[in-house]
Amino acid sequence: MSWLRSCGERTAPALRGTYRILAGQSRFVNSSSHLQHTPLTVLQQEHGIRRIILNNPQQRNALSLPMIQSLQKDILHEADDPNLRVIIISAEGNVFSSGHNLKELTAEYGKDYHMEVFNTCAKLMTLFQTLPVPVIAEVNGLATAAGCQLVASCDIAVASDKSRFATPGVNVGLFCSTPGVALGRAVPRKVALEMLFTGEPISAHDALLHGLVSKVVPEENLKSETNRIALKICQTSHSVVALGKSTFYRQMAKSLTDAYKLTSEVMVENLAMKDGQEGLKSFIQKRKPVWTHS
Amino acid sequence: MSWLRSCGERTAPALRGTYRILAGQSRFVNSSSHLQHTPLTVLQQEHGIRRIILNNPQQRNALSLPMIQSLQKDILHEADDPNLRVIIISAEGNVFSSGHNLKELTAEYGKDYHMEVFNTCAKLMTLFQTLPVPVIAEVNGLATAAGCQLVASCDIAVASDKSRFATPGVNVGLFCSTPGVALGRAVPRKVALEMLFTGEPISAHDALLHGLVSKVVPEENLKSETNRIALKICQTSHSVVALGKSTFYRQMAKSLTDAYKLTSEVMVENLAMKDGQEGLKSFIQKRKPVWTHS
Amino acid sequence: MSWLRSCGERTAPALRGTYRILAGQSRFVNSSSHLQHTPLTVLQQEHGIRRIILNNPQQRNALSLPMIQSLQKDILHEADDPNLRVIIISAEGNVFSSGHNLKELTAEYGKDYHMEVFNTCAKLMTLFQTLPVPVIAEVNGLATAAGCQLVASCDIAVASDKSRFATPGVNVGLFCSTPGVALGRAVPRKVALEMLFTGEPISAHDALLHGLVSKVVPEENLKSETNRIALKICQTSHSVVALGKSTFYRQMAKSLTDAYKLTSEVMVENLAMKDGQEGLKSFIQKRKPVWTHS
Repeated sequence: MSWLRSCGERTAPALRGTYRILAGQSRFVNSSSHLQHTPLTVLQQEHGIRRIILNNPQQRNALSLPMIQSLQKDILHEADDPNLRVIIISAEGNVFSSGHNLKELTAEYGKDYHMEVFNTCAKLMTLFQTLPVPVIAEVNGLATAAGCQLVASCDIAVASDKSRFATPGVNVGLFCSTPGVALGRAVPRKVALEMLFTGEPISAHDALLHGLVSKVVPEENLKSETNRIALKICQTSHSVVALGKSTFYRQMAKSLTDAYKLTSEVMVENLAMKDGQEGLKSFIQKRKPVWTHS
Repeated sequence: MSWLRSCGERTAPALRGTYRILAGQSRFVNSSSHLQHTPLTVLQQEHGIRRIILNNPQQRNALSLPMIQSLQKDILHEADDPNLRVIIISAEGNVFSSGHNLKELTAEYGKDYHMEVFNTCAKLMTLFQTLPVPVIAEVNGLATAAGCQLVASCDIAVASDKSRFATPGVNVGLFCSTPGVALGRAVPRKVALEMLFTGEPISAHDALLHGLVSKVVPEENLKSETNRIALKICQTSHSVVALGKSTFYRQMAKSLTDAYKLTSEVMVENLAMKDGQEGLKSFIQKRKPVWTHS
Repeated sequence: MSWLRSCGERTAPALRGTYRILAGQSRFVNSSSHLQHTPLTVLQQEHGIRRIILNNPQQRNALSLPMIQSLQKDILHEADDPNLRVIIISAEGNVFSSGHNLKELTAEYGKDYHMEVFNTCAKLMTLFQTLPVPVIAEVNGLATAAGCQLVASCDIAVASDKSRFATPGVNVGLFCSTPGVALGRAVPRKVALEMLFTGEPISAHDALLHGLVSKVVPEENLKSETNRIALKICQTSHSVVALGKSTFYRQMAKSLTDAYKLTSEVMVENLAMKDGQEGLKSFIQKRKPVWTHS
């Protein structure tokens, strides 16, 4: 069965581990919390597109340690399965995410717990670059502090025009130093520092202007736009995208000369792949490629 | 006395060294030049906001060696005093700064003098990152060569819509290589090179588009906008901002992994600070924080 | 004879090697292909401005190995001659360049040939930074894959408003990993990755917004705008531009402190140059400088 057919006809896969299906909704929830209480994140997967929804709007989708762990679990769940092609991270409610749960950061929790929160969070934020599939942030509303960091850490970010982004930690005496790692690598230094020093939000328009997101659309088009991008990715070869993504991040950390040395070799490697040759053949034969994802 | 009260009620501090007060103006001038001749820079400080004004409009606020030294002196003056919260650099007249004084760069001055000019200037431009307080450039007019470098080197830059930025050294046979250090790290490479090769100015709008400044406002709103940002910074904790600022610049020079290692530790350190705990407590108790700046 | 006079009065120089003049057109073509068949690239040079035209519109100016080599040859032809002041790369037809010739990348050509293609291409793309003169991409139409990389690799890029840019290799199973080197260093990471993962084009406007090009003009003004920039460069000193360009790229690879150490020394060196002193003298004497290009 070719991938494209699998894309179109695929029915819900057999799930294992801690995931179960809510009938008719393609909705998988952490079995531990299933039906007892609302899960912190909801995982939906269809036709290779995994949507992970931050599902704690009452607490403004705060990235508490359990929320970070739930998100990480949903991301890593069978992440190497070639049937998974792209991950979308979206959120329930008007706040994409308000960042860390400040209650967890009070003195009562202690230094060790704090260290665990930040280490786990940093692991999540750097995890995206190591995945074989693209990760898209779909932002509809406010993304602040570690929530802004989450957006900045994805591969692609699409925002509705009502979205806003801020790093307001300084207002509560906790400078957004970890969000600043992702933010400072996404937008010009002056923009990052004005956000970090004042805590004031920037608009979706300014986030696009400065490179924090790659696209801004009207709210009503947000989901269809991220789905459109995801479907586009579904039409490509899994193995080619995986090679390309890992190479991109590797070469960006190198000097220009070393980057070209690496990528020139990768291009030749890519050409020797089954899908590399199939792609060129189909192009020359003016037909659609049939990927084997190898 | 809390910082916030100190902010509101503070009267002119006792000044020492080379600074004196002009009664009723909160205006401090270099005592050496006081009343004899116009000082090259004017220092005003009120409520934690220091404004340093380039004050040589007749010479287009050229960054002569004395001007650089005067600016540096005003910046370093009691820079570690926790009562100082933010520095604004602005200028008298229609030219923010025209860069180096070309008369100082002729052969008559000799190689050693030239070297001193550029070394002192480079020290000034890298000094900003080492200060515990944010530095805002308030630009209203033309900023060229080292004047453009000065804007690019501040933490934040707000410009009036009539401002323009250029690196025209190439026109007088002196390529703007030192300004290119700051410019090349602030705007995309092609924009930097077009400016450096042609010497042509870009508009305030393009400066914002490309990240050289973080905000553009109508001329009549310029001062109120920088003051608004400065007042926002005054409402935060001095020690938290100092830690956050130094951490930001340190992590930006590191790899992603090392940056997260550093900042995760800093976050825990920040939480252990008095103001870190006060900030969280006040947030949870839904009251204004009372900073001790420690 | 001064440079400025030489600029204005210069007649066609005596050409050697593989270049010849087509009478009345200042058009030089590869002698090997001259009159036999259309050359892959056309070199025109007048008044210090070299225009190299990608001249294979039937094949969408594909960067086949012969095309890359022809382009490289035209670029390197007497590149150190101080009479050469600037290089413009433009293209015949509606496609600036479609990137590699995919037929050359099929299995029949073999791994060694593929490696040669990518190594030669990488050499071309890094060559621009080592030239003593600025290189301007003049884009009027579609620039894809290695064609987009070519634009990203020039010092300056001016595009007509109808131009578009894409890295669509993923669609034919060949991820644009080498173009990603130049693209990832020109635009924000999210924009680069969205382009690389979806293969979708961005508009000239978005290319400007994100820093891939430094200027966008209406199609009818494209040539006059690049020529205007080129003429501006012609009015400067060759040796000053050469020093400035090489210094810019060297310092950008360094830390801030090391960058200032290097450039401060270069500034003093620049001042000691004949044209450095002439430039300052002429400025102080309020007259036009007369460059000796030394």
